[in-house]
Amino acid sequence: MNTEWIAVDWGTSHLRIWAMQGETAMDQAQSNSGMARLAKGGFQAALLDLIEGWLGSAPLDVMACGMVGARQGWVEAPYSAVPSTPVPTVPIRVPNTDPRIRAFVVPGLKQINPPDVMRGEETQIAGFLATRPNWDGVVCLPGTHTKWVQISAGEVVSFRTFMTGELFDLLRGQSVLKHSVGEGWDDGAFADAVSDTLSKPEQLAARLFGLRAADLLQGQDAGIARAKLSGTLIGAELAATRPYWLGQQLAIIGADEVSNIYAKALQQQGAFVETADATQTTLVGLSLARNLTRQTV
Amino acid sequence: MNTEWIAVDWGTSHLRIWAMQGETAMDQAQSNSGMARLAKGGFQAALLDLIEGWLGSAPLDVMACGMVGARQGWVEAPYSAVPSTPVPTVPIRVPNTDPRIRAFVVPGLKQINPPDVMRGEETQIAGFLATRPNWDGVVCLPGTHTKWVQISAGEVVSFRTFMTGELFDLLRGQSVLKHSVGEGWDDGAFADAVSDTLSKPEQLAARLFGLRAADLLQGQDAGIARAKLSGTLIGAELAATRPYWLGQQLAIIGADEVSNIYAKALQQQGAFVETADATQTTLVGLSLARNLTRQTV
Repeated sequence: MNTEWIAVDWGTSHLRIWAMQGETAMDQAQSNSGMARLAKGGFQAALLDLIEGWLGSAPLDVMACGMVGARQGWVEAPYSAVPSTPVPTVPIRVPNTDPRIRAFVVPGLKQINPPDVMRGEETQIAGFLATRPNWDGVVCLPGTHTKWVQISAGEVVSFRTFMTGELFDLLRGQSVLKHSVGEGWDDGAFADAVSDTLSKPEQLAARLFGLRAADLLQGQDAGIARAKLSGTLIGAELAATRPYWLGQQLAIIGADEVSNIYAKALQQQGAFVETADATQTTLVGLSLARNLTRQTV
Repeated sequence: MNTEWIAVDWGTSHLRIWAMQGETAMDQAQSNSGMARLAKGGFQAALLDLIEGWLGSAPLDVMACGMVGARQGWVEAPYSAVPSTPVPTVPIRVPNTDPRIRAFVVPGLKQINPPDVMRGEETQIAGFLATRPNWDGVVCLPGTHTKWVQISAGEVVSFRTFMTGELFDLLRGQSVLKHSVGEGWDDGAFADAVSDTLSKPEQLAARLFGLRAADLLQGQDAGIARAKLSGTLIGAELAATRPYWLGQQLAIIGADEVSNIYAKALQQQGAFVETADATQTTLVGLSLARNLTRQTV
């Protein structure tokens, strides 16, 4: 295998890497050495653990995006302010690395009012737009912190972040609902919960404990409760993002399972939704970011 | 000291007891032996640890309320269905106790539609109503799981439970917001967050991550963030409970700090609010429950 460069998606909890030839991944690896688990001096070692076998005598470019560019990360890559193209500036070179690598971190985006930030999603958006010239619309990137991003004329115009994924995990794993929400799923229960919360968003706070009570009093199935919890939280997110998705051209970039759940909820509201693969858009975006560094060398 | 009986408030995470003469507490003690930390056989030992010094040769009545009556508790005390007086049936005798005690557990209340349950609050409501004959209105009992309870003609007519306190603790302690929400408080920020969420409850999901972004981009004070998080969650609860508090006679039963926060939010909406002490109402309620057991002996 002849590795040309190394692509890195370095989030809060995970590190994922790919051995690249052009825009094609030839090999991949991952670990749990996310940004939150590493001290300032630990980033390079965590990376070398995974890529030693790919390194040769000539230095390889390493292109990273995500929380690795936060203040507590490998190197701080200051946010660019929107409106802006997704990756408007040359990625930040990490100083004093092992001589076998030349490492760069893609800066995130910030929005001043209302205040909001992203790190990593800008790279996916760049990759998504690369094959869609003149695409205007809204991109939804579901995950721990779901982003809704308005795109016009190749620029990120505005965006909002929702803690829906993190709320779901906390409620399911650590609240009183952990006794009543389990494995399994029910499409009908999900759809009903989405519509109920969209039509009466002010009732959100009342619906959560109802999942516990329905188990205690009626023995509600734990998979139905899971679908209802997901539908209730996503319904609340769709209530808040209505101006983003109503009558807009929509694309979802994410992992398959969560993308499908969001697509179902949106299609149920009559929206037309395109989906794109998160890994593929990340790799194309990192490749574009690498081209920026080579133009300036 | 001459202890006539022992009052017990036994919740999920705490055990609190009082040595009683009539309705007066002569001494008190507490431990972390909450229901969730005890196996079925551990309840009596956890109680005796605290009360050994109060026991004599004659058996003492022990009156307990709270999660101690759940299926996983000391003895299951089946729910009574509303509408109902707060404590409509004789408390359940715990079988096979140490001969120095006669222990009873007050049953909770359940509502079939929408499904909801309470354990412990029914005793506080009974204590509150004891000194207010013919009181009609709505009682709010803020805490980990806040209850809103409609009272008419001495009966609990309906109620709803909100996970506001638990959500606040999870978001503040275990979500990404833990980096941005700290100690301190700001009344103005709290009031603004309550009004904003009450007037646009569908925006709740968007406001949470905004607390993180405002810290990252503007260095927002951690105490202001705490007041905003509290105001946002309580505003969402007030949006869902509007029919409960709008134009109603209102009473809040709870610990001082949380009661004051709820009172501020409600007064800001023009509501007139009475507050009652949680411990005092619990002791009066348990005393009434004890009278029920003595009438049948």
